[in-house]
Amino acid sequence: MLKIQGILPPMITPFKDNGEVDYDAYVYNVRKWAATGLSGLLVLGSNSETAFLTEEEKLECVRLAVENANGKLIMVGSGMETAPATIALTNKCADLGAQCALILPPNYYDSAMSTQALVEFFTEVADGSKIPILLYNVPKFTHVVMKPELVSILAKHPNIIGMKDSTGDIPGFASFMRACKGEDFSMIVGTASALYPALCLGAAGGILALANCNPNECVQVYDLYHAGKLQEACDLYQRIFPINTAVTGTYGIPGLKIACDFMGFKGGYPRKPLQRRSEADKEAIRDILKTAGVL
Amino acid sequence: MLKIQGILPPMITPFKDNGEVDYDAYVYNVRKWAATGLSGLLVLGSNSETAFLTEEEKLECVRLAVENANGKLIMVGSGMETAPATIALTNKCADLGAQCALILPPNYYDSAMSTQALVEFFTEVADGSKIPILLYNVPKFTHVVMKPELVSILAKHPNIIGMKDSTGDIPGFASFMRACKGEDFSMIVGTASALYPALCLGAAGGILALANCNPNECVQVYDLYHAGKLQEACDLYQRIFPINTAVTGTYGIPGLKIACDFMGFKGGYPRKPLQRRSEADKEAIRDILKTAGVL
Amino acid sequence: MLKIQGILPPMITPFKDNGEVDYDAYVYNVRKWAATGLSGLLVLGSNSETAFLTEEEKLECVRLAVENANGKLIMVGSGMETAPATIALTNKCADLGAQCALILPPNYYDSAMSTQALVEFFTEVADGSKIPILLYNVPKFTHVVMKPELVSILAKHPNIIGMKDSTGDIPGFASFMRACKGEDFSMIVGTASALYPALCLGAAGGILALANCNPNECVQVYDLYHAGKLQEACDLYQRIFPINTAVTGTYGIPGLKIACDFMGFKGGYPRKPLQRRSEADKEAIRDILKTAGVL
Amino acid sequence: MLKIQGILPPMITPFKDNGEVDYDAYVYNVRKWAATGLSGLLVLGSNSETAFLTEEEKLECVRLAVENANGKLIMVGSGMETAPATIALTNKCADLGAQCALILPPNYYDSAMSTQALVEFFTEVADGSKIPILLYNVPKFTHVVMKPELVSILAKHPNIIGMKDSTGDIPGFASFMRACKGEDFSMIVGTASALYPALCLGAAGGILALANCNPNECVQVYDLYHAGKLQEACDLYQRIFPINTAVTGTYGIPGLKIACDFMGFKGGYPRKPLQRRSEADKEAIRDILKTAGVL
Repeated sequence: MLKIQGILPPMITPFKDNGEVDYDAYVYNVRKWAATGLSGLLVLGSNSETAFLTEEEKLECVRLAVENANGKLIMVGSGMETAPATIALTNKCADLGAQCALILPPNYYDSAMSTQALVEFFTEVADGSKIPILLYNVPKFTHVVMKPELVSILAKHPNIIGMKDSTGDIPGFASFMRACKGEDFSMIVGTASALYPALCLGAAGGILALANCNPNECVQVYDLYHAGKLQEACDLYQRIFPINTAVTGTYGIPGLKIACDFMGFKGGYPRKPLQRRSEADKEAIRDILKTAGVL
Repeated sequence: MLKIQGILPPMITPFKDNGEVDYDAYVYNVRKWAATGLSGLLVLGSNSETAFLTEEEKLECVRLAVENANGKLIMVGSGMETAPATIALTNKCADLGAQCALILPPNYYDSAMSTQALVEFFTEVADGSKIPILLYNVPKFTHVVMKPELVSILAKHPNIIGMKDSTGDIPGFASFMRACKGEDFSMIVGTASALYPALCLGAAGGILALANCNPNECVQVYDLYHAGKLQEACDLYQRIFPINTAVTGTYGIPGLKIACDFMGFKGGYPRKPLQRRSEADKEAIRDILKTAGVL
Repeated sequence: MLKIQGILPPMITPFKDNGEVDYDAYVYNVRKWAATGLSGLLVLGSNSETAFLTEEEKLECVRLAVENANGKLIMVGSGMETAPATIALTNKCADLGAQCALILPPNYYDSAMSTQALVEFFTEVADGSKIPILLYNVPKFTHVVMKPELVSILAKHPNIIGMKDSTGDIPGFASFMRACKGEDFSMIVGTASALYPALCLGAAGGILALANCNPNECVQVYDLYHAGKLQEACDLYQRIFPINTAVTGTYGIPGLKIACDFMGFKGGYPRKPLQRRSEADKEAIRDILKTAGVL
Repeated sequence: MLKIQGILPPMITPFKDNGEVDYDAYVYNVRKWAATGLSGLLVLGSNSETAFLTEEEKLECVRLAVENANGKLIMVGSGMETAPATIALTNKCADLGAQCALILPPNYYDSAMSTQALVEFFTEVADGSKIPILLYNVPKFTHVVMKPELVSILAKHPNIIGMKDSTGDIPGFASFMRACKGEDFSMIVGTASALYPALCLGAAGGILALANCNPNECVQVYDLYHAGKLQEACDLYQRIFPINTAVTGTYGIPGLKIACDFMGFKGGYPRKPLQRRSEADKEAIRDILKTAGVL
């Protein structure tokens, strides 16, 4: 059975000045990440601007990731508003070589997404998907808050193998850990701001925006923790934390892309309606990277 | 120039037990609404479960609405996450006979949707759309809050003719009225809970979920107001208000469909992941309709 | 039976540079307001910085208001965290001549203030108070949200004569109006941003921060409405609305005091921990007053 | 210099059926806690219903705690809305033997409590207080959110020795740890739901509602952590976590008092306006204690 562990980046998608996907830059990044200690790659996560991609573009991103990842695990973000649409996209990705899928809850009618509605949705998706799925709890984007009760039910499904929790809510993460205790289910932390404390609670790994620009440091926190070097792991976590605040909070995806540029990746432009960052913001990001000692 | 006024229902989409769109029921409803004092019909609004419809289904709904609306204005909800996708869908709808489009802001990355980002988005859409557009402010679903500054800029665009504000925030509505003062721009209230006070502030009309099940009462509030019978308008508004709370709040879209059934329309089932309401809920809705004196 | 109607200011308390209450300035203001069309004065409301006053200072403010109000109604804000403490303060104020009291809900444990807890609290206070009381719904400060159910129960109490609703939530105001229908109970709007729409729904009056600096304009909106000059009332409401946004939102109580200075009252300084506003803010407030045509 | 470490309970105040403080029960509890591994006692914290106590009652609680604590550290919650009022109460408590004070930010005008306003407030209090103070960050009650910038400034003040953070926000806790790095400043976690992860980040201790009813288990988590038995510490934290959810969330202070009764302390009644819990709630709390293996 597939186990998710270690660090994965929810890969950015570089766009050209004219708004087209820059597939060359994309492949460049994939190969560069594939040469690190990352345990896999997430295609079509929130940081990929997947909401702005056509289905054709999405599938091309998956195809190129599989082709260039040098055997690393390929996870795909393929959640849609209904189970049939989600299954259709997931299975197309599976046919291209994706090994598992990270599934958003339906969220347009967020307030109607009761635990019962979500149990039915994820069960239908898991039953219909050719590859194992993981739940994706990201209220920042979906405004749907998954509950421990949901996890305790779904963790028993043989085709649901884990959950990415991007809330940064560590008491909540602890509750998810209790809810899936004893099941073959990997709890993955979804933000570097919670990486070290989540590892302390038994997180299997992290899918971290920060791993786009700083894959080595993220992997190192994970490795130090598992080597029992707790103080060093905590210190490094604290050191890179402000970068994460900048690239997931203050400056968002466009800021993350700038940080990628500074760190030797090809960030490219964001796609509209996301706005490009100013030169002043760019300088501020450079300063944050320098202060953190990574530049 | 097209002027929006009066009352329009954001039409529900009836589904069969097996989840397919029940087009017969849909046409039945369209014809029944077309025979009332409603000034037009909104296809593919939030209450249509449009997030769960395929593009093929969406276009068929538009086609059937145009064909059966007996000449009433057809507005279409065709907002997508990017301007090109929005323009493409809007123009397909225009080709089928839709006369104007109600456009949601992009919302997956809601916190990044600054006034500047929204000005660019709506301007690009308005420039590329064959038919006039209206802004759709519905933070309940989008978590994007439009500001008066946005309205004062966009109200000047010749192809942007109005705004539907579904917040129920009447001081906010007053601010939008100030922002578009002097422009050819129709402020439309988007919830029956705010209908009468919005009319008092100069609202041009209402696009109201409640107008699905109670079109006549909604139209009557509007007509009484314009006939100067303010107390009667206010009293009727107050009388039907609890129905609106039920069908837009407590019981949601599935509850609205039940209310439609009770009032002689064909509500049909909601599509999954929305959940069907219990028999007890159905009875509660019946009681609310009876108490309001409409059943 | 005492009826509350018309416009009252929740009076500011001017402080000297050294932080002491400036009673001379206070009396100056009371006399100036007493010479307008205001129907009464609220002592110890939220805008008085009552949270920063000692009991001795509070009672002196009440005494001086009664003495200098030229017979206008004196309402006092005397809510405390328990019913016995509230009754004690209210009755001391009553002994000094206050005619009714506006009572905040207990709010330190805001999430525990269920409708049942509030019914018991307000009933005990109303039973023990020598003067009639009004409920004060101001979640902005208390984070306690009163419900229509609460109003429908308490409106029947012979010593509870009304409610000030400062939320600006007009559909909520409409629900309170339904809840107290048929009772001798005055619904008072608590923010000038909602004044005109609240009057349209049947509000008996307004207790408005803006009435500190612009009593005449607030009274005029009320008078125009009651004279059936609806458009003029609405236009004036819209014209003074931005001042209200400035003095209750953007610049807070310190800004309100500056606006009072500009309008010929004695604003004085705020008491710490409230911060004084900058010269730039002062200029901005002057501009807002000029734009609104009151300066 | 005084260092805060280990576990302290924010002591409940037992009330009699008639609403009076039950000082006998209070002393019974103080002595029982004093005989455990707790490092001190917090008098007049939020869980003491301090908002409902008269000053006379507050001081009697402090006096009795000092007298019966068998030499354990006595911390007192003495924050008021202004610095002078806070200093006055703090120094009265100091005169009775309290060794340090936990100070709430002023909170009635919560939205005006900028970092600058809070820096001035806490500096004035620290300057005027006879005993060292700690900052108390508890937005659940105050709706004031302290920022890392505030901590980095105030941690340098010689009479400000630490902070209790009750948010449960662990990434935020990590940010506070960075902000006070290198200073003599103790970061204390304020909820058992975050105890173990906070210890992993270097928390000096915990002031925990749960330590009222389960002092031994809370102390044991702390001791196991410091003995390097991390898995055992984490397991025990996870086991007692649901009790904490019950007594700080679901059932509140009245529920905490019931849990205290079950665990051999004298919980007493809550004071009005807090409501007593039902027999059914009492049974539910008993079940939660049993499931956690502490009863």
